[in-house]
Amino acid sequence: MKEFTINFTAQKKKIKVAQGTDLLTAAIKSGIMVHAACGGSGLCGKCKVFVNKKEVLACQTIVESGLDVNVPKESLEIRAKLAHESEEFTKGVVLKREDAFNFSPLVRKIYVESPKPTQDDNLSDLDRICTGVSHKLNNVHISTNLSNLKHLSEILRGSDFKVTATVAYKDDALDIITVEPGDTTKANYGFAFDIGTTTVAGQLIDLNNKNILGTRIAFNKQALYGSDVITRIIYASNSEGLDKLNEAVLDNINEIILDLSGAESIALSDVYCIVFAGNMTMMHLLLKVDPTNIRKAPYIPTTLVFETIHAPEAGIEINPRGIAAFLPGVTTYVGGDIVSGVIACGLAESDELSLLIDIGTNGEIVLGNKEWMIGAAASAGPAFEGSGLECGMKAVKGAIQRAEIDKDLNARVVTIGDGKPKGICGSGYIDLLCQMLKRGVIGKNGKINSDLKSGNIRKTEVGYEFVVAGNIVITEDDIENLKRSKGAIYSAIIALLNKVEKPLGDIRKIYIAGGFGNYLNIENAVLIGLLPDADRSRYEFIGNSSLAGARMSLLSRDAFMKAHEIYKNITYVDLGSEPNYMDEYVASLFFPHTDLGRFPSVRL
Amino acid sequence: MKEFTINFTAQKKKIKVAQGTDLLTAAIKSGIMVHAACGGSGLCGKCKVFVNKKEVLACQTIVESGLDVNVPKESLEIRAKLAHESEEFTKGVVLKREDAFNFSPLVRKIYVESPKPTQDDNLSDLDRICTGVSHKLNNVHISTNLSNLKHLSEILRGSDFKVTATVAYKDDALDIITVEPGDTTKANYGFAFDIGTTTVAGQLIDLNNKNILGTRIAFNKQALYGSDVITRIIYASNSEGLDKLNEAVLDNINEIILDLSGAESIALSDVYCIVFAGNMTMMHLLLKVDPTNIRKAPYIPTTLVFETIHAPEAGIEINPRGIAAFLPGVTTYVGGDIVSGVIACGLAESDELSLLIDIGTNGEIVLGNKEWMIGAAASAGPAFEGSGLECGMKAVKGAIQRAEIDKDLNARVVTIGDGKPKGICGSGYIDLLCQMLKRGVIGKNGKINSDLKSGNIRKTEVGYEFVVAGNIVITEDDIENLKRSKGAIYSAIIALLNKVEKPLGDIRKIYIAGGFGNYLNIENAVLIGLLPDADRSRYEFIGNSSLAGARMSLLSRDAFMKAHEIYKNITYVDLGSEPNYMDEYVASLFFPHTDLGRFPSVRL
Repeated sequence: MKEFTINFTAQKKKIKVAQGTDLLTAAIKSGIMVHAACGGSGLCGKCKVFVNKKEVLACQTIVESGLDVNVPKESLEIRAKLAHESEEFTKGVVLKREDAFNFSPLVRKIYVESPKPTQDDNLSDLDRICTGVSHKLNNVHISTNLSNLKHLSEILRGSDFKVTATVAYKDDALDIITVEPGDTTKANYGFAFDIGTTTVAGQLIDLNNKNILGTRIAFNKQALYGSDVITRIIYASNSEGLDKLNEAVLDNINEIILDLSGAESIALSDVYCIVFAGNMTMMHLLLKVDPTNIRKAPYIPTTLVFETIHAPEAGIEINPRGIAAFLPGVTTYVGGDIVSGVIACGLAESDELSLLIDIGTNGEIVLGNKEWMIGAAASAGPAFEGSGLECGMKAVKGAIQRAEIDKDLNARVVTIGDGKPKGICGSGYIDLLCQMLKRGVIGKNGKINSDLKSGNIRKTEVGYEFVVAGNIVITEDDIENLKRSKGAIYSAIIALLNKVEKPLGDIRKIYIAGGFGNYLNIENAVLIGLLPDADRSRYEFIGNSSLAGARMSLLSRDAFMKAHEIYKNITYVDLGSEPNYMDEYVASLFFPHTDLGRFPSVRL
Repeated sequence: MKEFTINFTAQKKKIKVAQGTDLLTAAIKSGIMVHAACGGSGLCGKCKVFVNKKEVLACQTIVESGLDVNVPKESLEIRAKLAHESEEFTKGVVLKREDAFNFSPLVRKIYVESPKPTQDDNLSDLDRICTGVSHKLNNVHISTNLSNLKHLSEILRGSDFKVTATVAYKDDALDIITVEPGDTTKANYGFAFDIGTTTVAGQLIDLNNKNILGTRIAFNKQALYGSDVITRIIYASNSEGLDKLNEAVLDNINEIILDLSGAESIALSDVYCIVFAGNMTMMHLLLKVDPTNIRKAPYIPTTLVFETIHAPEAGIEINPRGIAAFLPGVTTYVGGDIVSGVIACGLAESDELSLLIDIGTNGEIVLGNKEWMIGAAASAGPAFEGSGLECGMKAVKGAIQRAEIDKDLNARVVTIGDGKPKGICGSGYIDLLCQMLKRGVIGKNGKINSDLKSGNIRKTEVGYEFVVAGNIVITEDDIENLKRSKGAIYSAIIALLNKVEKPLGDIRKIYIAGGFGNYLNIENAVLIGLLPDADRSRYEFIGNSSLAGARMSLLSRDAFMKAHEIYKNITYVDLGSEPNYMDEYVASLFFPHTDLGRFPSVRL
């Protein structure tokens, strides 16, 4: 097999790769994080690099000789930008419910000043520490690991019996994970993580005062092996496939940990706890648990509840005695990310009927209150994440986020970061659909009105398309795709209401979570029939609620325990088995709906 | 540094050792287990080897050149003989209390035939197993290790959802330690161990039917580094000292495991559980926990309760997911071996007042019933184990076990194994003291009557001695030593009775445990004042009760849990702080006692 040297000039990295490797893989192997939002299919067009001054897509360029490659800045991941936006937003969300749960982080540091042993006070060294700890935390059972005992007697006597015990909650008991000389209580940090199919988001938290010290978001490096959970599960069944997927996400996680800790000059040894929320496939891949049967009927995960482990068991690089905890899932399709969202929005603690809609790669929905909850997964697909559409992209720099269409059928667009438009993200599509409906560019069935005279309406080999800006278009296929997505979500909401025989008006709070979060225009989302026509004041954006719930669980054992009640209390509704769901779905395949009576506020 | 080659001719082993090494160390390094009952001091005379046809003690022979060494059979460890005796005896002891505790071994195998998942029965793989397990064992909380999840979905589907879950008790919860395809319930074995300062005893048990499949006893290899706990603790403070002591006892344990499993053709992977009892120093060394402060006032152990661990954490070679559990101790001086003994004899479950006396290297005593218990450690020293006496030896082949002295003051002796007498063991000394008292060879103060005319009474540079057989003698120093030992034990018993203001007659059962167990003549032990003058029918021998209690704990979680109550319920009495203890002790330094009224049955 031939090997060639690839020289990444701007990044000053060289790598030898086998003939036939693509440049994206080569770059990532060299530690250069080139954009790969589409999983290497070339659709996103983000991995532009220069070879002999010629612009090519790294993922589409196969190595057939030694090359000098220049990766421009814009092709590198824009974590900082993403992170800033997310931090602003998730901070806001969490603050509202800051005091919902008792402050009791999963890992605490307890400073213990023991009296020195005497003939009359001859408690063992361990009992001496346990007494000190239970003095401050009322716990019946306190245990510790053998390795902490080995030099305990020396540590105690070397520090004049003044030590700091780092304790972790483990079921109902306390586990002493380290004992250090002196008072080190000030240095106690943790991470909350949302492991999404597309993005991985992490937050560094000071466990002494709840402060968020930083947030980072990165594209899930597993995208290299498949853009959605199904293709990744298939990839996992290849030899070493699971290993590679696992390494990819661990890379994401450890990079974020190192990055955020480094920015705050925090030693990894002072990070003791990490809490993960994510869908069940992501949790299986994170823990290198065979995900095969998640994909095969009847879609059985290995487990819905992953027990708390020591971080190194999962390859997570924090204090080697630190712990990793996981939010439990309801079913294969309603995972720990949704349970985490329920924690974040408070649905399970409220007397009032509430609805949580998490619009991400799928579209999970929970309806209920503190008495009962039902949940479902709509097969919405990732259209609102910009995936699978002609010019779709994530809500990152250059994406059309808002749009208007004037009476001459010319679109005026606003992009994220105000740069040149590069594509359209979810909220952009919603605005555009609205405007196209209002201007009559499309009818209620979503077909483009070819009778309209405008240079922006073009016929192609596969049908009509509407030109938004430059090369950026919406095709009839895109509209069909978006219609199915919005129909799936809307009809899932109605199916849940029907299930419990409640009218829409009974819902007091509708929480909107997920990727496009704060960019979404509710009015427009109702107008296209994505969201039901409820009182607008009942809607609330909660952003990445999976991350927020993980953070709340990190900061409160009560929240974490609550999540372990919630997952059992959510009854999963399999929409496919609901008698009227198909009728509802078909009826929703219009803008906003076949039954306009359901959308009284909508005037088209 | 010069190195020489030592060639062990009969064993066909060669080793290079540094100049100055002794031959005992060289032999043990070569894997040849030469006797070292005295810890290499030369006192026991057991490590005889031949160098150039000349008999020498291996431990006393320093290597100054290359040598051919012949280790005769008799100098090798006689584990088989010891084991046979112990097995006979401990079997008997356990059988009496066979049904005292519910049969519920610490590790169980549960065969689970799960229904195959369907859309309506979509339990996760793990829940499917947990349901099957909790069907057979009523437990609220069942957990498992991450590593068991990795291929669980494959194992279940590869075995048509018929698997065997091996579950271990962990506090109040059940931990699934392995999941295997098919029904493997028949292969479930465990070990019980007593780790004594001098001997290590292990038993292989079939956890399906309580059968003892074999017993082995070996001399604790730590003896090479010190004969008692104090010298070993000092040795542990040297660089690598703790490592060496730990390796030595692990060698003992793993050898016995391999030996017994091999003899029964049992795979180590089918051994899932090991339960240890031992004094607190032995437990620290076994788990490589710094023992330094056990030896320094106020004598604080790192812990009295070692939590159940996975066997590999301690270097124990059974199934890598197998567990190791430990009997808890009361204090530094009343360890897990004594708590185990309390389990074995049933003292803590009885309405009647009972006394447990474990005569080993020290002499631990527990008095009480199911309502209350008090315990003490008498500083008896190891005299009754034959240690520290001119011709003392363990109760092994060649030891004088019984003796009579005729009117001409000639001793007739019975040795263990009926061979040529090589020394005197504990029960032999007791018989001899008795006979010497009866024949007037010694007075009540223990001094030899030099007025008696007999060639067996000799004067040496350091005082008088009595010739028992050939070169085997009892010196006045030996008698003084034995008097102090018996006085320490007797006065400890009285001190405990005084503490609770009970007369001797209130004690319904007196359990005698420890090394010399079944060889001891109660009548003679009372006559010399070692044991109190109680109704002889109340005495019962229970042999190695530490091993028996470990076995009972292995076979019954109830017994194991009971031990974890017992250790808390025994109030430790520090004899040194008891107001009248010293007076009692001094008064007991006569044969049988200064106050003959306490020994009404004794006629001298």
